[in-house]
Amino acid sequence: MGKMRQVLAGETIAVPPIWIMRQAGRYLPEYRKVRKQAGSFLDLCYNPELASEVTLQPIRRFDFDAAILFSDILVIPDALGQQVDFEEGRGPVLGPLDLESLDKAAVRSHLAPVFETVTRVRAGLAGDKALLGFCGAPWTVATYMIAGHGTPDQGPARRSALGDPDRFQVLIDLLVDASVDYLLGQLEAGADAVQIFDTWAGILDEEQFQRWAVDPVRRIVDRLRAVRPQTPVIAFAKGAGVRIGDYATATGANCVGVDWSVPPAMACDLVDDSIAIQGNMDPMRLIVGGEALDRGVDRVLEAFAGRPHIFNLGHGITPDTPIEHVERLVARVRGREGN
Amino acid sequence: MGKMRQVLAGETIAVPPIWIMRQAGRYLPEYRKVRKQAGSFLDLCYNPELASEVTLQPIRRFDFDAAILFSDILVIPDALGQQVDFEEGRGPVLGPLDLESLDKAAVRSHLAPVFETVTRVRAGLAGDKALLGFCGAPWTVATYMIAGHGTPDQGPARRSALGDPDRFQVLIDLLVDASVDYLLGQLEAGADAVQIFDTWAGILDEEQFQRWAVDPVRRIVDRLRAVRPQTPVIAFAKGAGVRIGDYATATGANCVGVDWSVPPAMACDLVDDSIAIQGNMDPMRLIVGGEALDRGVDRVLEAFAGRPHIFNLGHGITPDTPIEHVERLVARVRGREGN
Repeated sequence: MGKMRQVLAGETIAVPPIWIMRQAGRYLPEYRKVRKQAGSFLDLCYNPELASEVTLQPIRRFDFDAAILFSDILVIPDALGQQVDFEEGRGPVLGPLDLESLDKAAVRSHLAPVFETVTRVRAGLAGDKALLGFCGAPWTVATYMIAGHGTPDQGPARRSALGDPDRFQVLIDLLVDASVDYLLGQLEAGADAVQIFDTWAGILDEEQFQRWAVDPVRRIVDRLRAVRPQTPVIAFAKGAGVRIGDYATATGANCVGVDWSVPPAMACDLVDDSIAIQGNMDPMRLIVGGEALDRGVDRVLEAFAGRPHIFNLGHGITPDTPIEHVERLVARVRGREGN
Repeated sequence: MGKMRQVLAGETIAVPPIWIMRQAGRYLPEYRKVRKQAGSFLDLCYNPELASEVTLQPIRRFDFDAAILFSDILVIPDALGQQVDFEEGRGPVLGPLDLESLDKAAVRSHLAPVFETVTRVRAGLAGDKALLGFCGAPWTVATYMIAGHGTPDQGPARRSALGDPDRFQVLIDLLVDASVDYLLGQLEAGADAVQIFDTWAGILDEEQFQRWAVDPVRRIVDRLRAVRPQTPVIAFAKGAGVRIGDYATATGANCVGVDWSVPPAMACDLVDDSIAIQGNMDPMRLIVGGEALDRGVDRVLEAFAGRPHIFNLGHGITPDTPIEHVERLVARVRGREGN
């Protein structure tokens, strides 16, 4: 998997590998075309032919260094038996959470189509490109399972976690088990590395962050490594902020994603040099383009030069991003190739 | 203004002063009663009799060490001539922004009722209680003026700021002028100190944070001090995270507010000892109560003991907070009184 393997192993290379969170998505006309052929959004996630196609689209178009499996963090509650729907323009809507009825034995069989997608993508991907599997971190997945939908501050889950931590721990433990099964299935099917997305980690205070964001991810990493010792793991705790260095070390990740609220030089100070950093340009710079984009790219490249770095945005690319700006980004990052 | 004065002057005292952001608000039955008597929300902001009453309510009930003027950050665009409405359950809705039509000469006369509120509150407040004036920081106010309403990530303003920085600077400069006029009016009317709220600072990357969050606030502080050299200023940049120390020093504030995503020990490391820290308990702990509340209070008190500290939440109190929990909080913070 080429450059990605090198950087995830802790090497510093002159031109960092680049991929973009949510790179297979609505900003691409070829994605929108396939999306129309699928029924629901979950149908697309569970259709190996179409899901592998959309996973590969951004690689063909932009020659990114990594493909990331097209899936969704909410396939886990779906596999556990909670109702999950994606409504146009409204985002995910989940049915009531009945903790006792969730069935973790069903996870691997329910998600078999996703593993087939992974195998198809790996077969269609050049050897120097990495295939990233992924899952949502237990905390973030739990926030949706409890609220039933996205909220401005995931208050319902924060309230449960503080008010009835023993019961909340049961849910988190179940999600740790399910996540391990899901990620191992992806790795066995051909994923080269995995990323664990904790979009809502930043909303937790110190004590809660340790218990619900750090500990579950550390347990997942430990269990993956017990089965597959060389598995590279990228952990992305959005909003970790000043806690990013401790998070990186405590989870045992090979690489941590950093959002754009952390100045790159500070991320370098906080994160141990042996751990790669992935990030962290403001996605808005990619929407705006021009000078704002060029300056953003240069600042990120300069700040992370001399340490293991994977170029990425600080969060996902949005549907309103012009394709030419993505082309300009890739060219600028690679402009130094051979220098 | 008692303890607040001491801490804002850089003193460390055994039992920190306490107040709560948004302490005059919907969680109080006496507030809801007055709210019904006023017409619109802005009518309440501009009614000195009712606004001074709701400002004083939480002091009577909880004996907080500071009252904060009841007003809203959007009185500034209203005073400048942009249409501002508060719709039940929907939040603020602003009319189209026409930069050329905004009239900063109207700010002081338009906001005269607010200054009268300040005078009334100061007259009704004991000498050992501080009266805090406030305004929204130019960046945060601009995000609403541009989007016309709240958004999940204030994308419209971020886009304007990156895409047309010269024009965005005109708006920010206007807001700096209006904020200085507004805060000076409050100080002349009897406010003891002022807080500048930058709720959306955390969404900015390093370069943009410096230009739109740090610089305008530093200019406001400088101009207030040029007229009133001893004015204590509290600056609250939510989401500043790892940047909180530099923000504190660069703005020249006497005190910085810190949200709950920053572990208190790290806030102590980052912020110069001469600058007070205000914060930073997760408001959810106040909703949940019990053990979660007690532990949260104790952790904050212990971490900030030995440096200038004002006890507060990491953001505003929410309407679903039980009043008994606020009583428990105050008792616990003050439990050490005399120790």
